[in-house]
Amino acid sequence: MKTAFVGLGAMGYPMAGHLGQRFDTLVWNRTPEKARKHAAEFPTQVLENFSGLRDVDVLFTCLPTTREVSEVLEQVLPFLKAGALWVDCTSGDPVKSLDIAQKLSGHQVIYLDAPVSGGTAGAINGALSVMIGGPEEAVQKAQPVLSAFASKVVHVGQVGSGHAVKAINNMLLAINLLSAGEGLVALAKLGVNLEAALEVINVSSGRSNATQNLIPQRVLTREFPATFALGLLAKDAGIALDVSRAANAPTPLFSLTESLYRAARDTVGASEDHTAVVKMLENWAGVTLSSPSAVKDRSSP
Amino acid sequence: MKTAFVGLGAMGYPMAGHLGQRFDTLVWNRTPEKARKHAAEFPTQVLENFSGLRDVDVLFTCLPTTREVSEVLEQVLPFLKAGALWVDCTSGDPVKSLDIAQKLSGHQVIYLDAPVSGGTAGAINGALSVMIGGPEEAVQKAQPVLSAFASKVVHVGQVGSGHAVKAINNMLLAINLLSAGEGLVALAKLGVNLEAALEVINVSSGRSNATQNLIPQRVLTREFPATFALGLLAKDAGIALDVSRAANAPTPLFSLTESLYRAARDTVGASEDHTAVVKMLENWAGVTLSSPSAVKDRSSP
Amino acid sequence: MKTAFVGLGAMGYPMAGHLGQRFDTLVWNRTPEKARKHAAEFPTQVLENFSGLRDVDVLFTCLPTTREVSEVLEQVLPFLKAGALWVDCTSGDPVKSLDIAQKLSGHQVIYLDAPVSGGTAGAINGALSVMIGGPEEAVQKAQPVLSAFASKVVHVGQVGSGHAVKAINNMLLAINLLSAGEGLVALAKLGVNLEAALEVINVSSGRSNATQNLIPQRVLTREFPATFALGLLAKDAGIALDVSRAANAPTPLFSLTESLYRAARDTVGASEDHTAVVKMLENWAGVTLSSPSAVKDRSSP
Amino acid sequence: MKTAFVGLGAMGYPMAGHLGQRFDTLVWNRTPEKARKHAAEFPTQVLENFSGLRDVDVLFTCLPTTREVSEVLEQVLPFLKAGALWVDCTSGDPVKSLDIAQKLSGHQVIYLDAPVSGGTAGAINGALSVMIGGPEEAVQKAQPVLSAFASKVVHVGQVGSGHAVKAINNMLLAINLLSAGEGLVALAKLGVNLEAALEVINVSSGRSNATQNLIPQRVLTREFPATFALGLLAKDAGIALDVSRAANAPTPLFSLTESLYRAARDTVGASEDHTAVVKMLENWAGVTLSSPSAVKDRSSP
Repeated sequence: MKTAFVGLGAMGYPMAGHLGQRFDTLVWNRTPEKARKHAAEFPTQVLENFSGLRDVDVLFTCLPTTREVSEVLEQVLPFLKAGALWVDCTSGDPVKSLDIAQKLSGHQVIYLDAPVSGGTAGAINGALSVMIGGPEEAVQKAQPVLSAFASKVVHVGQVGSGHAVKAINNMLLAINLLSAGEGLVALAKLGVNLEAALEVINVSSGRSNATQNLIPQRVLTREFPATFALGLLAKDAGIALDVSRAANAPTPLFSLTESLYRAARDTVGASEDHTAVVKMLENWAGVTLSSPSAVKDRSSP
Repeated sequence: MKTAFVGLGAMGYPMAGHLGQRFDTLVWNRTPEKARKHAAEFPTQVLENFSGLRDVDVLFTCLPTTREVSEVLEQVLPFLKAGALWVDCTSGDPVKSLDIAQKLSGHQVIYLDAPVSGGTAGAINGALSVMIGGPEEAVQKAQPVLSAFASKVVHVGQVGSGHAVKAINNMLLAINLLSAGEGLVALAKLGVNLEAALEVINVSSGRSNATQNLIPQRVLTREFPATFALGLLAKDAGIALDVSRAANAPTPLFSLTESLYRAARDTVGASEDHTAVVKMLENWAGVTLSSPSAVKDRSSP
Repeated sequence: MKTAFVGLGAMGYPMAGHLGQRFDTLVWNRTPEKARKHAAEFPTQVLENFSGLRDVDVLFTCLPTTREVSEVLEQVLPFLKAGALWVDCTSGDPVKSLDIAQKLSGHQVIYLDAPVSGGTAGAINGALSVMIGGPEEAVQKAQPVLSAFASKVVHVGQVGSGHAVKAINNMLLAINLLSAGEGLVALAKLGVNLEAALEVINVSSGRSNATQNLIPQRVLTREFPATFALGLLAKDAGIALDVSRAANAPTPLFSLTESLYRAARDTVGASEDHTAVVKMLENWAGVTLSSPSAVKDRSSP
Repeated sequence: MKTAFVGLGAMGYPMAGHLGQRFDTLVWNRTPEKARKHAAEFPTQVLENFSGLRDVDVLFTCLPTTREVSEVLEQVLPFLKAGALWVDCTSGDPVKSLDIAQKLSGHQVIYLDAPVSGGTAGAINGALSVMIGGPEEAVQKAQPVLSAFASKVVHVGQVGSGHAVKAINNMLLAINLLSAGEGLVALAKLGVNLEAALEVINVSSGRSNATQNLIPQRVLTREFPATFALGLLAKDAGIALDVSRAANAPTPLFSLTESLYRAARDTVGASEDHTAVVKMLENWAGVTLSSPSAVKDRSSP
């Protein structure tokens, strides 16, 4: 079993490392130094030329958006082996991924969309969750390879479904975070103790990952560690909205939230941590969400 | 220490029961039969006439809305003992509660707003969480009495703060639930396996009490057990919006959600379980969120 | 027929002047100098003491909000003549006005809510439009007095209806203005000629008072003449939302807009002209709506 | 000067008729009978085969969406004359039109996006307004041909700008209509006289084409004449949202409205008149907007 990994970013770098521990693995990155560094640190080899993909059984991509996946596709298509699997861990666009799958299908290559969750910590620990879309047989074939970096692989439906579920998850994150921010801003202006409020919300019906982890660890501490960029969450919110529109599912909260994240991205800054979206609300209301005794923790979401 | 409890509804009935186990406790209900039944089941006594409040140290109210609390106030005011505490466990309106507090203050009675969370199960097990607003000294005085039915008492701020936090919590519940519904409706229309999708969302950043408990237990099972009515959640969303407006905190998601819950209340039904809000989304999109193997569990939220 | 006019602001001052031309008219203002100035400029007399209201047949109020009307009510109630009319031209709150009407009814005084439109220009020219709520007979009795400053009097329903229609009108203004701003900001970023775009929109289905008058005269000229304050429009949007909630009418666009105007009021400035709401959108998008050849015109909306 | 016209729908049929009165004109329609009927009724000739386009100077398209324009493009591309103009009167998608323009540019054909407003009445009377995007020189060349059916031609910017302005205009129509519906539903529930309310709104700051024409003529009469389909307005709202996203312009009202029109399209019916969007609001609130004396008028918007 021979694998290759394209895209050695914050997530891909450790994922490809785990892969190299178990399988014969080639690595490629737009900036080649990073691939060389990887091959020095892990038992992997640099993919010097895409023609080296000719005997690869499973090709992984983990790139910023589906656009970069499409660009790689154009370059590598002539060299792919018939019968190979393409496992795309990008948080991608399910509609555009269908085109990719169709194009690959013409070359006897099966495309699986397999975005991950668990953050950089999960990637480093090899404990990611994978939501995967594609034909059952191909998913089963991919399973042992995925287990190199994943502790949980869930087959959610046909091709595109993995991307769709990831986009919806991130939209829920976006909404839970923004609405928690709205509530805390109002409470702050009324002089309520925010830590006490969160303590009780977090054992009550309104709790979410945002109130339990993100707000206390990243917002109240004023640390906003940039592990997942606001610009990327705005992009994912856009994908989730497009998914809903393609599904003919009216989604007023998704629609409004997508628009507000674009406003936040353009006023707060695309490269800020996604939790910095609350700064837009703080600016509107003239208040800062802070707490002297807030829990400090830089672990990723 | 003598207590009295006004309002023996689904929550108040067991709460007053716990109180009776530890303190000399009078009970009153609009329909007197219920008070008699209570006194037969628990070590409590029926408050036949409000003049019986003259030697009560702590008076509890647990009523549908602040309006009913105001109505009781008018009737009992002449009989309250100077130095008594009024502990209002209603999910009430913080702005109107300030008026009540001021009026009571003129009679040397201290008002504490002390709404609870934990549902009927928490009330029966004496394991509620209380979010309480009011002066520090009075909160400390109330603490041992509250511990009869609460496992957690959090002092969140001055008078009104308890109601404000409860309203915000319930608005977050409303938003988390509605947005999860939007996402699942879109996924369902795309043919995604909803249980698989929830399995992965629930270990990912988009998770909330709605995705972890309410949707799998109440929606996918199509049970919608009516433990907390849609009409009451719509009312609480309205209070949360009023809190935000009073605080001069712009809250686009709160505003839109309040409006959508009114639409759901008026089209789906005010007495349906709050989770039935997703039926409005299902109706818009022409799809039903269901799952043959969904977890069945009637425990309250 | 004897009249009195309370509230000599930008609208009330010229309205009371027209009244004085036709009827025996007393004028009162919180700052008495203004009343004296009025009596010097117009054939009116200063109301030195509220006891002077004893023989007044029609009392007008034209104040910033219903709160000020309630305050005046407390002061003048003992002096009102049985059978008098109270015509309230304030852009007021219909729910609170019902309380006022009931209280006055106990003194045999009939309350009519009669807000106006037409701006300061209409007030000066005596060409206002009045939307009036109350009993038919009383409205007919008020009609000849109103015609002193109004060219159109429309009886829209029972008491409170005048305020309700005025609030809805202003909410529609708020929405038409904000949505036109959203569209023009997008077009500006795409390099479209805004004047040409408005020229064609203004003969097409999307036209409104905002695209036809406010945007070309106040925004594209960058003049933003402060004739109607952003803070007051935000207040009116709040009244319109409360009207909808009282009517059990779900209104997602009203709800969202009310929230966005609060954000604009608190970031752009409450005393800016209402058209300055577009500055919030410009700030979000990093663009300015301007046009070298824009029509300059300070006439009121 | 030789012209051709592709797409003989409710708008295109009379437009091509006017063209035939002045120029040598070929007509084509997906169902050829319609083209034959046209050539019998007007001085036009049926375009039997696309090879007949070889000597055409100006080719018009007027189709439901840009997708159909792209399909026609594939078929006609080999036959277009170098130096010809392609004038696309479709209410199309500006982003996709850029691709079309680029492809045509490779064949020395200049693409102009030139959507129209004025409805079927304007088309029949040859009094349409055209908003046109493209290079100045080409627009000037098209002007005398456009004047066959247009009373106003406005050059709004570079290619794509015509589509963008049309989409924004239709989004403003969508918002003005829906918000007027929200307001009237609330007023109706409060028992206000709707015709009286509209009479005063229509001389006040909240007036728009929706309150002045659409609501009184189409909604209060309960006629909802299907001249412009709800499904097409929902499609246009989607284009306007995409335009805003492409422009990086945050647009909360556009976003929410797009979502609500999809809900209306899927619950009220895509082929209903666009004004039937108010039926969704009526259904939510349990009320019907009607008026015995409403103006009846079937003229198009």
